[in-house]
Amino acid sequence: MAEVTETQIAKFINDPNNLTKELLEGYVMAYKDKVALGAENIVVRKNPKDTDKVAIVTLGGAGHEPALSGFVGEGMLDASVVGDIFAAPGAPRVLEALKMFKRDAGILLVVLNHAGDVMAANMAVKLAEREGIKVKILLTHDDISAGLDAAIDDRRGLAGCVAVYKAAGAAAEEGKSLDEVYEIGERLNKNMATLAVAMKSCTHPQNGATIAELPDGIMEIGMGQHGEGGGGRTELLSADETASRMIEQLNKKLNIQKGEKVLLYINGVGATTHMELLIVYRKAHQLLEELGAEIAEGKVAEILTVQEMAGFQMIVGKLDQDHVELLTKRKSDAPYWTVCG
Amino acid sequence: MAEVTETQIAKFINDPNNLTKELLEGYVMAYKDKVALGAENIVVRKNPKDTDKVAIVTLGGAGHEPALSGFVGEGMLDASVVGDIFAAPGAPRVLEALKMFKRDAGILLVVLNHAGDVMAANMAVKLAEREGIKVKILLTHDDISAGLDAAIDDRRGLAGCVAVYKAAGAAAEEGKSLDEVYEIGERLNKNMATLAVAMKSCTHPQNGATIAELPDGIMEIGMGQHGEGGGGRTELLSADETASRMIEQLNKKLNIQKGEKVLLYINGVGATTHMELLIVYRKAHQLLEELGAEIAEGKVAEILTVQEMAGFQMIVGKLDQDHVELLTKRKSDAPYWTVCG
Repeated sequence: MAEVTETQIAKFINDPNNLTKELLEGYVMAYKDKVALGAENIVVRKNPKDTDKVAIVTLGGAGHEPALSGFVGEGMLDASVVGDIFAAPGAPRVLEALKMFKRDAGILLVVLNHAGDVMAANMAVKLAEREGIKVKILLTHDDISAGLDAAIDDRRGLAGCVAVYKAAGAAAEEGKSLDEVYEIGERLNKNMATLAVAMKSCTHPQNGATIAELPDGIMEIGMGQHGEGGGGRTELLSADETASRMIEQLNKKLNIQKGEKVLLYINGVGATTHMELLIVYRKAHQLLEELGAEIAEGKVAEILTVQEMAGFQMIVGKLDQDHVELLTKRKSDAPYWTVCG
Repeated sequence: MAEVTETQIAKFINDPNNLTKELLEGYVMAYKDKVALGAENIVVRKNPKDTDKVAIVTLGGAGHEPALSGFVGEGMLDASVVGDIFAAPGAPRVLEALKMFKRDAGILLVVLNHAGDVMAANMAVKLAEREGIKVKILLTHDDISAGLDAAIDDRRGLAGCVAVYKAAGAAAEEGKSLDEVYEIGERLNKNMATLAVAMKSCTHPQNGATIAELPDGIMEIGMGQHGEGGGGRTELLSADETASRMIEQLNKKLNIQKGEKVLLYINGVGATTHMELLIVYRKAHQLLEELGAEIAEGKVAEILTVQEMAGFQMIVGKLDQDHVELLTKRKSDAPYWTVCG
């Protein structure tokens, strides 16, 4: 790779080696009443949950802000274990977090399905169990771009994780057992489908490399978290046509029935404007209503970003009544997912 | 201007003439329990405030989402009157909103200082008063890029408006009189200073025109809401150096004393990543603490965007104790400014 000069990375940063450290410091300063650094690269609640309740922990690389640490807070995550930019945290750090949250009630470890994260989580859990730590993994795999019959291993975890954090977090706050919290989260996880679309790539903030080159005037449906191709390239489509194609694909997976309650989130991944996201949301919402769905929760936000990539993820989930309650009626005081309930 | 083809505008949109209509429809669908369209281009609360309380209304062009309509909700705005992309709504529409919120308690009309918005507001208020509507204008002018001694007319209203909405909205919810609500908002408004920095321009989503060409490798401190130049161009600086220069300028205006309470918001205007915004926040927070300030509220968010422009606004405000309470301890249920209090 060619040497990268600082001006090639046109970003407001300092030493590229310190990105993760500095962004986490900035985050816990900005929201000092809600979050803190429990250890290096481990973000925890400022006011911990009672230890007789199940703890919810997650892990993943930095560079996707506000994910994942933005969802640490009362009613959601107890801890987020952060890797370097686009990189999984190592198993030792995950283990460190599991030790911090050791409790009889147990820990739910929510893992987005990406090879490095899964490997770190599995190894950490194995070591944790040897030390008598009670922990259960919930693997999210909402991406449907690998195809409807793809093995779970091939279905990546995208921004749908945020609903699992919220539902499981609220259930844990109510004092439910680890098995119950897992069941609630996993039932939602299974009923969720996400599809990503990208229009313009981004640069890696440490080495300036362009990730997933996309020619001008071309969009791709089915991109992964970092812009890995996964679906079809096409010329740019209108917002309505894009939404239509995506809802059609998502519904092949979900098979929504009349009267079913659903969530619909549009996750902006970076440079795509809120204006566009709202316009896309409009059509997706209309199409879901035409399918007979009742939209119990809508959100348009930057949930899990990929630097300054242009595009978005469309997330649809079928909700049972308990999920509706947990998602919309319970308080979450996480800085980037605040629900007064 | 050259003819614009659809592919020149690489955005997820439909007919460029329908942007505002469609984005507002998407918005009120996504947050249907909180907001609704009271009339064309007028966003109101789904559950209106009691009519014996002061109403808070604002106005401004679209294209800056989530501003301004994202701040309509319990504890914040009662209505947002929306113009077309980057354009003020006309006086007739503002008048229509004032008529909708006519009440003995009165209306506070918060206007960001931009010529078109001010003209529309003044004309609407003149007509409203003839019809016996009690209304008072609060003009925000937090931008300091025109210089410290600039006349108020030359100081634009930037994203600092959101704090005025929150403080005035909370005061109105408590049942304070129009004069009291105005005084609380205006006292905060006077003690607020904002500086913008841009690194990359954006395209107008209707005609594809580039707004404020900025050469690669150049940044400009003191850009206006739409990228109008107002300050100095410089080669790209590090996040820390950028924050240092900005805090120095902002403090020339604010002259922060030891022990004073302040708010610090970093508003991402579009393509600049949350990662960068958090890194910039970190240094600004540290510098304010070195000045002896106590940071009573921090936020890092896309508050008022300018399409896919790269850059941010740094907002610092000196807070009296009542402002701290109103900003941080009172509930706001606006979709894009949720505070459980």
